[in-house]
Amino acid sequence: MNKRMVLKTAGRIMQIVSLLLLIPAVVAIIYAETKQLFAFCITALCAFLAGLVIVKLTKTKNRVIYAKDGFAITALAWIIMALVGAIPFVIAGDIKSYVDAVFETVSGFTTTGASILTNVEAMSRSMLFWRSFTHWIGGMGVLVFVMAIIPNFTDRSIHIMRAEMPGPIIGKLVPRVKDTAKILYLIYIFLTVLEAVLLLAGGMPLFDSLVHTFGTAGTGGFGIKADSIASYSPYCQWVIAIFMLIFGVNFNLYYLLLLRRIRTALKSSELWCYITVVFVSVAAITVNIAPIYKNFSTALRNSTFQVASIISTTGFATADFDLWPGLSKTILLLLMFCGACAGSTAGGLKVSRVVMLFKSVAKEIRRMLHPRSIGKVHFEGKSVEDSTLSSVSTYFVIYMICFFIIFLLISFEPFGLESNFSAVAACFNNIGPGFSAVGPTASYTGYTGFSKIILSFAMLLGRLEIFPIVVFLSPRTWIKKK
Amino acid sequence: MNKRMVLKTAGRIMQIVSLLLLIPAVVAIIYAETKQLFAFCITALCAFLAGLVIVKLTKTKNRVIYAKDGFAITALAWIIMALVGAIPFVIAGDIKSYVDAVFETVSGFTTTGASILTNVEAMSRSMLFWRSFTHWIGGMGVLVFVMAIIPNFTDRSIHIMRAEMPGPIIGKLVPRVKDTAKILYLIYIFLTVLEAVLLLAGGMPLFDSLVHTFGTAGTGGFGIKADSIASYSPYCQWVIAIFMLIFGVNFNLYYLLLLRRIRTALKSSELWCYITVVFVSVAAITVNIAPIYKNFSTALRNSTFQVASIISTTGFATADFDLWPGLSKTILLLLMFCGACAGSTAGGLKVSRVVMLFKSVAKEIRRMLHPRSIGKVHFEGKSVEDSTLSSVSTYFVIYMICFFIIFLLISFEPFGLESNFSAVAACFNNIGPGFSAVGPTASYTGYTGFSKIILSFAMLLGRLEIFPIVVFLSPRTWIKKK
Repeated sequence: MNKRMVLKTAGRIMQIVSLLLLIPAVVAIIYAETKQLFAFCITALCAFLAGLVIVKLTKTKNRVIYAKDGFAITALAWIIMALVGAIPFVIAGDIKSYVDAVFETVSGFTTTGASILTNVEAMSRSMLFWRSFTHWIGGMGVLVFVMAIIPNFTDRSIHIMRAEMPGPIIGKLVPRVKDTAKILYLIYIFLTVLEAVLLLAGGMPLFDSLVHTFGTAGTGGFGIKADSIASYSPYCQWVIAIFMLIFGVNFNLYYLLLLRRIRTALKSSELWCYITVVFVSVAAITVNIAPIYKNFSTALRNSTFQVASIISTTGFATADFDLWPGLSKTILLLLMFCGACAGSTAGGLKVSRVVMLFKSVAKEIRRMLHPRSIGKVHFEGKSVEDSTLSSVSTYFVIYMICFFIIFLLISFEPFGLESNFSAVAACFNNIGPGFSAVGPTASYTGYTGFSKIILSFAMLLGRLEIFPIVVFLSPRTWIKKK
Repeated sequence: MNKRMVLKTAGRIMQIVSLLLLIPAVVAIIYAETKQLFAFCITALCAFLAGLVIVKLTKTKNRVIYAKDGFAITALAWIIMALVGAIPFVIAGDIKSYVDAVFETVSGFTTTGASILTNVEAMSRSMLFWRSFTHWIGGMGVLVFVMAIIPNFTDRSIHIMRAEMPGPIIGKLVPRVKDTAKILYLIYIFLTVLEAVLLLAGGMPLFDSLVHTFGTAGTGGFGIKADSIASYSPYCQWVIAIFMLIFGVNFNLYYLLLLRRIRTALKSSELWCYITVVFVSVAAITVNIAPIYKNFSTALRNSTFQVASIISTTGFATADFDLWPGLSKTILLLLMFCGACAGSTAGGLKVSRVVMLFKSVAKEIRRMLHPRSIGKVHFEGKSVEDSTLSSVSTYFVIYMICFFIIFLLISFEPFGLESNFSAVAACFNNIGPGFSAVGPTASYTGYTGFSKIILSFAMLLGRLEIFPIVVFLSPRTWIKKK
């Protein structure tokens, strides 16, 4: 364990957050929100100085980052980001309680989009901007960003990338981690700009376009209206729906497109499974909800939007899907667990994991029928090693165990099983809204402080795919072995 | 695939069921229920003749039963039992629809206890007896029974036992399968008689004692009163609660007691985990529900009874736990999935599997922290092989996949997520009552025929631990390989 390196990185993260806080400060200047401007600046200043002291005082001879350190750095970075990022909300008075502010900020950075706000339209512009901007930062990952811009990171930093990027297998696009991080961020920025321009072209105001683009790109889901996206034009709804799906695709495929290796990109089994799941879900829900809406195209638009929003774990809404019939709600609930592709900005189990789980079950059944068969599992054109399969199964087991423990911890809340279950599903999978008491028209404000902390924790567990947080909290990580 | 042997066993099973039907026929004579007597006799006669024809016409040279045959025989036997056992209900007119009767009979044999009856007290005595008697038969397993009494079963029949007995690892108590089956049945009969005598001593009428003992022994849960066990004396409730827990213990431990190897029996880690889970759940629920009840002892009795009923997957009730606070309901929901010990008559995942799942997760985390550690998992004093761990994880994956598919299939029902989710949990884990629309005071009568068939299927999947049914339905099992 390279504790000094972990500490030094923590200091750097504080400096990075303080710089990021200057962006909403600019928004505060534009809208002449003085209280908010002060809140951002004072937080930024303090965080920067604190970070500077830590970085200067920590002497690191050994710059090597081991696997364990990668996990610890990542977990610590995200916790610091949330704790620091929550301060301006409280100083400016937009959110009264610090626990609520932390919940909101964790929800932002982890791209969950679960909110404790009961009247989002009463918030100041700069705070709304900051809230959505955290989605954009959290989507691709702060540490990936740090790696892309800070020069003296060693090449062992693949361990950090592995801890922060979602999915069962992380590959480097190019030999150097730093360059991989840069390429990913450039693709991310390009798609973000493209969506913002398309929304502007559809007549959405600039501020709204930016905020919603951040929410889409990070698959976050914070909106700025009480009815989320419902009051915007069908054109804007379609643009957002399609971009939610686009940000749910593995970014490696976009890199392949960039290299004009279109055929290789289109061969991805995960992509096709993802498209199939989306298509089938949209079809089933459209048929199921058609009687509720006045015409087929409205039903299709609402169904596509909600499916895109849930499978990409974004959480925007154009309809109160809590009022939809049981079949549609159940499909949405299952999509919450599935999530989109690995290597995207989405949460959930990820399509590739779900496919591998099904394949390992099929293999087990084949083995029962023909005990002497060796049966290899193939995925993405390659045969999958048994160790990968078994670690995917183990991930599923630990995922479900975490799920049930969190569910048990918030079970004393008086909202009934459906609300609590979907609240855990929505937070743990980084979606945002659930059903019933935490439905798309409701908020998490009714939960107690204790539950809010547990749910914030669930969001972090979900975003970092469990292990970094568990490693970070494990006493073994910090105590030297004799 | 030894198809002839499978067919011959199917014929035998029909004969066995016809003989079993004579027992409730005797009850019908005692209570002078002529319509019911006729229904049992005519069904028994037809089934016996049909079985006889099949057995006589099927010539088997090769008597060897392979693993695959074991699964197919087991699945087929259980389906035949349900289809034949349901006929008397319809002939006698106690249940109008055959689908309902099949649901009730599958629920009986699989020891689920989920009922479609809205007025159980209006049923005839002999039908109530038959319904509960199916629990007793299904608890230990019909094929185990067949092996115990029919002389010419080969010793490869361990494959049948493995398919029918619940739990991750099945051991033979004594070298011969036949003798193991006999010992298990003798213990089962002894405990059954003991409970019936204790209930009689508590003033419960003979008929009620027998019926409730059958329900307890098989961990089934069919009652004969609208309020299940609530109207009986506290003494009787305690006796049933304790016996539900007793029937949830691995029967191998009772065999060890029989051999006076008490120390070995008490060393069982599964037993201690089971006791701990029960103890913690009872304590938490008692505290949680204490304000509802007039005194502590009533709260303790209701909490113990319901915990025993759910963890042993029996399904009797002394209180409408659907009205309990969220924490208690969530604990009960989690216990539904946990289930009792392997090698008992209970359903669910089984404590030993849950323990192994936790241990394999702990191993994975250890491996992440110390990549070079070899870390062996120990259970019941032995080191567990990696293949066992991985097959337990795979079982959990297939279990959850089945769960979600069944949940999706019944999702068009208008009862809401909580009812549907708990209905699947209650049927798949062989418990019986769930929450809300399928709570302990309600019944499954509101579900459509399609959902009743799906849920019956879920009960069979749960009782036989998935694989036999999947193997039976797989076309590969029946088509010859080229």
